[in-house]
Amino acid sequence: MVEINIIEKASSGEVLHEFGALNTLLFVIILGMCIVCAYLIKEYRFYYLPESGAAMIVGLIVGACARLFYPSRKEMEFLRFNKLLFYFFLLPPIIFEAGYSLHRKNFFDNFSTILLYAVLGTMVSTFIIGYLTFYAGQAGWISIDTSSPLEALLFGALISAVDPVATLSILGNPELNLDPLLYSLVFGESVLNDAVSIVLFNTFLKFYESGKEFTPTAVGMLLVEFSLISLGSVACGFVTGLGCSLLCKTTNIKKYPKYEIALLFLFAYGSYSLAEVMKLSGIMSLFFCGITMAHYNTTNLSKSSQVTSESIFQSFALAAEFFVFLYMGMGICVGQFGRWDFTFMILGIIFCLIARLFNIFPFSWIANLGRSQKIPFQMQVVLWFAGLRGAIAFALSQDMPGANREVYTTTTLTIVIFTTIVCGGLTEPLLKQTKLKIDDDEDNDDIAAEDEHGLLSTEISDHPPSPQITRRRQSSSEYMAPPNYLGSFWGNIDEKYLKPVFGGQIRRNQ
Amino acid sequence: MVEINIIEKASSGEVLHEFGALNTLLFVIILGMCIVCAYLIKEYRFYYLPESGAAMIVGLIVGACARLFYPSRKEMEFLRFNKLLFYFFLLPPIIFEAGYSLHRKNFFDNFSTILLYAVLGTMVSTFIIGYLTFYAGQAGWISIDTSSPLEALLFGALISAVDPVATLSILGNPELNLDPLLYSLVFGESVLNDAVSIVLFNTFLKFYESGKEFTPTAVGMLLVEFSLISLGSVACGFVTGLGCSLLCKTTNIKKYPKYEIALLFLFAYGSYSLAEVMKLSGIMSLFFCGITMAHYNTTNLSKSSQVTSESIFQSFALAAEFFVFLYMGMGICVGQFGRWDFTFMILGIIFCLIARLFNIFPFSWIANLGRSQKIPFQMQVVLWFAGLRGAIAFALSQDMPGANREVYTTTTLTIVIFTTIVCGGLTEPLLKQTKLKIDDDEDNDDIAAEDEHGLLSTEISDHPPSPQITRRRQSSSEYMAPPNYLGSFWGNIDEKYLKPVFGGQIRRNQ
Repeated sequence: MVEINIIEKASSGEVLHEFGALNTLLFVIILGMCIVCAYLIKEYRFYYLPESGAAMIVGLIVGACARLFYPSRKEMEFLRFNKLLFYFFLLPPIIFEAGYSLHRKNFFDNFSTILLYAVLGTMVSTFIIGYLTFYAGQAGWISIDTSSPLEALLFGALISAVDPVATLSILGNPELNLDPLLYSLVFGESVLNDAVSIVLFNTFLKFYESGKEFTPTAVGMLLVEFSLISLGSVACGFVTGLGCSLLCKTTNIKKYPKYEIALLFLFAYGSYSLAEVMKLSGIMSLFFCGITMAHYNTTNLSKSSQVTSESIFQSFALAAEFFVFLYMGMGICVGQFGRWDFTFMILGIIFCLIARLFNIFPFSWIANLGRSQKIPFQMQVVLWFAGLRGAIAFALSQDMPGANREVYTTTTLTIVIFTTIVCGGLTEPLLKQTKLKIDDDEDNDDIAAEDEHGLLSTEISDHPPSPQITRRRQSSSEYMAPPNYLGSFWGNIDEKYLKPVFGGQIRRNQ
Repeated sequence: MVEINIIEKASSGEVLHEFGALNTLLFVIILGMCIVCAYLIKEYRFYYLPESGAAMIVGLIVGACARLFYPSRKEMEFLRFNKLLFYFFLLPPIIFEAGYSLHRKNFFDNFSTILLYAVLGTMVSTFIIGYLTFYAGQAGWISIDTSSPLEALLFGALISAVDPVATLSILGNPELNLDPLLYSLVFGESVLNDAVSIVLFNTFLKFYESGKEFTPTAVGMLLVEFSLISLGSVACGFVTGLGCSLLCKTTNIKKYPKYEIALLFLFAYGSYSLAEVMKLSGIMSLFFCGITMAHYNTTNLSKSSQVTSESIFQSFALAAEFFVFLYMGMGICVGQFGRWDFTFMILGIIFCLIARLFNIFPFSWIANLGRSQKIPFQMQVVLWFAGLRGAIAFALSQDMPGANREVYTTTTLTIVIFTTIVCGGLTEPLLKQTKLKIDDDEDNDDIAAEDEHGLLSTEISDHPPSPQITRRRQSSSEYMAPPNYLGSFWGNIDEKYLKPVFGGQIRRNQ
C-alpha cells in the first residue's frame, strides 16, 4: 500500500504505473517467501528461528540486494519503514485478531495479575531503563541529552513495549503445548503493555515539548491521564463491539454473508479510528472491540461468516506481522540509519534485562499473595525471558525528538533483533528445561484434523476455543482459576442483561 | 488507503496522524452507510435503485457536504478519484471475484458467442462511437479535436467498456431468478470486454502520442497486438493459477489455513502485477487466474479455507465496488470537473445506444447461425439495454490526452450515471416485460438457508455452483448447451492430465 504515495510522486502516468506494478510484484514475491519460510519452520518444527525472525532475515536480504543492484533514491524510499502505514494498516489487524481469538476465560481469570505486569510493571521498567540510561549518559559512556532525564525516559517508555507479535509467533505454536497459565500471562501482558507504553511515551513527549519541569505532581497528572485514556479506550471498544452485535442480531443481514464480513471489518476499523479521533488509545479500543465481538457477535453471524471471520482475521494478522518484520529487516540495509553506538546497544540490552527482572519477580511475588494457583519460580524465569521487543518499540523510536533520534532508533533496532532472534530462539530450549512444555509424541496431523473439526463440524458454540487451548487445558489438570468476585458479578450482568440483547450463548446452568 | 499519500504530504507528524484518523473514520462510516443501503435494497426488494446507484448517491451527498462544510484543498484532494488506487486496489478484487465465482460450465458453453460480443462487438462499438463523435465535432456540434479521428476513437474505446460491477449488482441478484443463458452472456461479455477496451484505448493512445497516421496497416497491427496481449494474459493467469494449485496440492499447507488464505491472495495479486509488469492485461490475467484457481485449487484447500475464500473474495469485491461508485459520486461535487458540454452528453448517450445496437443484433444473428439454442429477440433487447458503463470507463477517461480531457471526463461521468441509474433501474421492469425473469412466490429466506447449507454441509464438490445458478438451471428446463468440440477436447486433457497433477474433482463417468 505504501507504494501509492511514492508512485504518486513520480512524474508521468506511465512511469507511475510501471513502478507500481513492479513493486507490487516484488512485494508479493517477498511476502510469499516469508509465508513459505514460516510454513517450513512449522512443518519441520524448527523452533530455533521464530517466524518473525525469518521474515526479518528475508527483509535483510532483500534490502541488501536492493542496495547493491538498484540503489535509486525512489526505490530506497519505497523500502523504508513507513509509520503511517504501520499505524493505520499493519497494527490494527494484529491487535484485533489478538482480541478476537483470545481465550477470554483464561485472560479474565488472570486479569489482575496481567494488569500488575502490564501497568505497574511497565511503569517500573520505564523508569529503571530511563534512569539507568540517563546515568550512563551522565557518566559519559553514551552521548545523549543529559540536561534532563526526559529524553532517556522517552527511550525507557518505548523500549518497555513488549511485542505481542513476536511473542505469539513463538509461544502461540500449538505444537509447543504450553502451560495455559503461562500462555495467558505472557500474551495478556504483551497485548496490554503496548498501550501502556504508547500512552507513557506520548505523555513524556508532551512534557518534553512543553519544556516544563518533570516534578512529582507531573507524575501524578500522568497517572490520572493514563487511567482516563485507558478507561475511555476500553469503553470505546466495548461500545463499538456492542453496536456491531446489535446490528447483526436485530437485522436479517445474516442472509448476506458478504455484507456481514464487510460490516465486521468496518466496525473493527471504526473502533480504532474513533478512539484515535477522540485522542484515546486506538489499539486498546481495538483489542476490547475484538473481545466484545467474539463474545457477543459470534452467534449472531451466519455459519459461513463464523468460519470466515475466524480465519480471515488470522490471515490478515499474519500478513501484517510479516510486513512489519520485513520492513525492519529492510530498514537496516536501506541506509536509513547512520549513527550506531555499540556501547549503547550493549547497555540497552543489559538495561532491558535488568528492568524486566524488577518487573516480573516483585510483581509475581505480590500476585502470588492473592492467587490460589501460585506462579512457580521457573515460570517467572520464562516470563522474564519472554520479553521480546518488536515493531511498536521500533515505530515509537522514530518519533523520538531531539538530535539523538538516530542513536535511539539504531539501539532500539538492535534490541529488537537481539530479543527476537536470540531470546526468541532460546525460548523453546528454556521451556523444555523448565518443564513448562509438555512433550507429546502424537503427530501434529491430528491437530490439523481437530482444527477443521472444531471449525466446521461442531455446533455453534460461544466462539469455540482453538484446539491448542483445549489441549492446554486438558494437559494441565491442576489448573484452577483464582476466585474472582468482580468476575462473577460481571458474569451475572452479562448473562442476564447483555447476552439476551446483544447475542452470545447463554450458559445453561445459569 | 489513499489517505496515506495525502497525509504524508501534510507537515507535522501529529497533524498527519489526526488527519488520517479522522478521514479513516469518515470512510468507515460512509462505507458502512453504503452497505446498510445495499442491505435495505435487497431486503425490501427495491430493484429500481441498483446498489451501485445507491453508493453513487451516498457519494454525491458526502461530496456536497464536504464542499459546503469543510472545503479545504487537502480535504478535496482526499475525496478525489485516484486512478492508482483504482487500478491497484479496487479493480483487482472485483475482477478476481468475477473469475472465482464464475459458473464455468455456462461460461465456456457460450464462450464463442461471448467472444463475438466482447471482442468484435466492442471493436465495432468503438469505431461507431468514435466516428460519430468525430463527425459531430466536424459538424461543429461539440468542440473537440477535429484534426484527426484519434481523439474521438479514444473516447469510443473507453466508453465501450461495459462494466461488470454495475451489471452484476443488478442482474446478479438471486431473487431476480434470471434466465441462465442471459446471465452468462451479459456477465461474460462485460468481464471480457473491459480488457478489450483497455487494450484498444492504450493502443490508440500510443498512436496518438507517436503522431503517426492512422492507416489500415495500423489497424492490422493493432489487431495483431491485441491478440498477442490477450493470449499472453490468459496464459499468465492460467500458469499462476496452476502454480498456486500445485503448491497447495503437493505441500502440507492445508494444515495451516491462515497460510493458505494468505497464499491465495498473494497468487491472485501476483497474477495481476506479473501481467502488468510484462505489459499484458492485468485484469484478463486475474480473471483467468480466478477461474483456474476455482477449478483446480478448491479441492486442495482445507474445508475452512474453502468457505473463507468464497466469502472473503465476495466481501472484498463488494467493498471495492462501493468504493468506486462512492468516489465517482464524490467526484461530481468536489469540483474536479470544470467543463460540462450538455450537447455532448446527450449525443454521447445516443451514440452509445446506437453503437450497442450494431454490436448486439448483428452478432446475435451470426451467433444464432451456429447455436442449437438460439438467442431469442427479447433477450437481445435486454442485452442491448444492459450495457451499463461504470468505473473502468471513468478511470480511462482520466487518461485522455489533449486539451479536451475535462469534456470527455464529464461526458463519461454523465453516461455512467445515466446508464447506472436509468438503464439499471429499468432493467427489472424490462425483464418482467420480456418474461426473462421467472416470478416465484417463495420467500427468499429459503435461499439464505440453502446458501448456508450449500457452503457448509455438502461434500466437497468442484466449487459448488451458488444457489442462484442452481435455481436458474432448474427453472429453465429447455436449456441446452451448444455442441462444443473444442470444449470436449479440452475436457479430456483436463480430466486425464491436468486434474491429477493440479487437483480438482475428477468426473466419475469419465
